[in-house]
Amino acid sequence: MLQIGIDIGGTTIKVGAVNDQTEIVARRARVFPAGESYVKVVADMADMIGDISRTLNVSVKDYESIGIGVPGSIDKEGRTIINAHNLGFHQVPLVDAMEIIFPHTPIYLANDANSTALAELHAGALKGCKTAVLMTLGTGVGGGVILDGRMFNGGMGNGIELGHMILQHGGPLCTCGNRGCIETLCSATWLIARGKEVVSKNPHSLIHRKTEGNGEKVTGKTVIDSAKEGDEEAKKIVQQYLDYLSSAIVSLISLLDPEVIAIGGGVSLAGNFIFEPLKELVEERSFFKIHRPIVPTRLGNEAGIIGASMLARNFGEIV
Amino acid sequence: MLQIGIDIGGTTIKVGAVNDQTEIVARRARVFPAGESYVKVVADMADMIGDISRTLNVSVKDYESIGIGVPGSIDKEGRTIINAHNLGFHQVPLVDAMEIIFPHTPIYLANDANSTALAELHAGALKGCKTAVLMTLGTGVGGGVILDGRMFNGGMGNGIELGHMILQHGGPLCTCGNRGCIETLCSATWLIARGKEVVSKNPHSLIHRKTEGNGEKVTGKTVIDSAKEGDEEAKKIVQQYLDYLSSAIVSLISLLDPEVIAIGGGVSLAGNFIFEPLKELVEERSFFKIHRPIVPTRLGNEAGIIGASMLARNFGEIV
Repeated sequence: MLQIGIDIGGTTIKVGAVNDQTEIVARRARVFPAGESYVKVVADMADMIGDISRTLNVSVKDYESIGIGVPGSIDKEGRTIINAHNLGFHQVPLVDAMEIIFPHTPIYLANDANSTALAELHAGALKGCKTAVLMTLGTGVGGGVILDGRMFNGGMGNGIELGHMILQHGGPLCTCGNRGCIETLCSATWLIARGKEVVSKNPHSLIHRKTEGNGEKVTGKTVIDSAKEGDEEAKKIVQQYLDYLSSAIVSLISLLDPEVIAIGGGVSLAGNFIFEPLKELVEERSFFKIHRPIVPTRLGNEAGIIGASMLARNFGEIV
Repeated sequence: MLQIGIDIGGTTIKVGAVNDQTEIVARRARVFPAGESYVKVVADMADMIGDISRTLNVSVKDYESIGIGVPGSIDKEGRTIINAHNLGFHQVPLVDAMEIIFPHTPIYLANDANSTALAELHAGALKGCKTAVLMTLGTGVGGGVILDGRMFNGGMGNGIELGHMILQHGGPLCTCGNRGCIETLCSATWLIARGKEVVSKNPHSLIHRKTEGNGEKVTGKTVIDSAKEGDEEAKKIVQQYLDYLSSAIVSLISLLDPEVIAIGGGVSLAGNFIFEPLKELVEERSFFKIHRPIVPTRLGNEAGIIGASMLARNFGEIV
């Protein structure tokens, strides 16, 4: 059977048909229609599903489910986007709207970090785990928790917000209104802000040279690459970043004692340059002196579609 | 049927026989033999069990299980105390030793905060919960997590160390060697340290008067009572304490989205003076703007015995 997985991001909407071997057998993508009503997004998704169906020579009733992952919070019933700031969506009844077009197909909606965790659980770095954590380090910090071999959707069904656990009481102001959330100190945004400071202060720094002095060009990768190439300022930034990140992981270990911690997002692409010192710091600081894998996610950009296509497995009757 | 529950603390060993209605039908207590071998503790426990049996006119085979809670970390198999600093016990094979005396009775061993959570789950403030958290605020900060209606013993079976989640990266040094653990900022020990500072600096403060200027007499209660009576310095200390504690709870909510958070330990006895402002701070700061109960534990000193007596229900075949 086929499942449809949809990954709605702030720049792109990706749709894929996924088979039982968790392979994407057909896919489409469109630019996210920023500023337009969600009705346009629904129409775009339906269009792409139709297009995929023609390519595969199947009909809509051949899809066992449609799963949608969005960067935001979802209501308990899994039907409405409560807030997705990057999409400009608030109180959007996305499942209702999709059901009008696909009345006979079960439709599932979830936070994208959660569905990514699900993808990694079934086909990636968390395969076979009973208890595991995924952290996604990007513009913000998202995460998914696997408990008892399933995606944990919060005790009251509100999902989890790993990035808004507090890492430094009284620390930097977070977009959520609180201070010192993991997100304020462990996101790529933090790395970029530090990189920009270097650009504005030190014209001899490697980060300055790599960006031709234009702070707007600084990415997480610029900072990490500069550190890899031995730039002292960049090395200090990365060291401080790993200091924070290791503390965040220590908190997760203290509470959940997971088998594996997978790290996704742009930062995780830096490989052993990040993972080796990170593992050392975490082992040194953890209450439980147990070696446990801290690994990059495996599915990369495909995790969004694959995870969304698996929502029926986690929430529905399909196993 | 009867279960034996044993609560080993740094000052007292308490033993109770508990019936199916979770009532303690007979109990004994002895001073903890500090500095002596664990063999003495095992002999004391056996003595008290024998004594209780005579009182109830039952024999050892009438006990379905013996459960033991200790303030420390336990190995995965639930047989050996890895570290219990307050007892001076390290790598103590407590279950092995008890099995020599009680070869036909299943014996369970767990961290005391975990067994307290179990007691509150079955007979106290967490009754009926699927997902809940217990925090015990004392000399340290312990905790128990209920997931899927059972006591969570960590994903790898190492138990959880809620008090060693990090609340203030780079904060005060913790006994575990790390910095800024919840325990360093939310324990009664933190309150006492602040109270002592006031005693040494301000002879006119209420805390100074209540302790006749003797810092050693300061307890968490002295500080809280002084704040209740309107002392400005004490009020500031309690405010700062609640500021930290609310952040710690916010972290737990962000990750677990629990139905109920129960707070135990001496601090929780202060009632609404603590709970009302705490609830307000937590609701204001939580990512999920959902009213959820933050309540004192209900079983008080009995929770240790009752929880230990229920370990068989959680880990064993008895339901």
